[in-house]
Amino acid sequence: MILEHADILIQPGQQAAFTEAIQRGLATVISQAQGFRGAKVYKGIESAERFVLQIQWETLEDHTVAFRQGPLFGQWRAIVGPFFAAPPVVEHFELACEVS
Amino acid sequence: MILEHADILIQPGQQAAFTEAIQRGLATVISQAQGFRGAKVYKGIESAERFVLQIQWETLEDHTVAFRQGPLFGQWRAIVGPFFAAPPVVEHFELACEVS
Repeated sequence: MILEHADILIQPGQQAAFTEAIQRGLATVISQAQGFRGAKVYKGIESAERFVLQIQWETLEDHTVAFRQGPLFGQWRAIVGPFFAAPPVVEHFELACEVS
Repeated sequence: MILEHADILIQPGQQAAFTEAIQRGLATVISQAQGFRGAKVYKGIESAERFVLQIQWETLEDHTVAFRQGPLFGQWRAIVGPFFAAPPVVEHFELACEVS
């Protein structure tokens, strides 16, 4: 399992509309993607325009190759892209440890 | 529930030692803190020295007041601080939505 971590800055005042849009984009587009294993969206407390999107993928290539080079990417960006104030900063991570 | 999101850059070549230290710090120090509800540590794939620490707190003040101004903070920093290449960038988030 691989974590996609996207740091997103949106246009001011668009929090509610963006939250609706990203939920719809995840539910209708990303959830169809090969290797998709779940997603969470967090909204900033100190930085009201900052969101962190975390998507679990089965493999790195499910995101970087199958999704980004496939037909779903354009559909996704059409839904969430208009809200971005800057290109999202996206990197991938592996779980190093967990304490509950 | 509040998510503490810490973006951490460590000294090169210290990944294994840092992973051991942060796991130990979470298990022996953070897990004792008031309002602690779980933690995950992710290590970067593209950026080998980058880690993301995510801690779930019952309330924002459990982290910002009770923990940071209490005796556990010094114990925690003594364990993980020596690995930092820069001060961690810490902000707090709320869950906006989830798709599984």
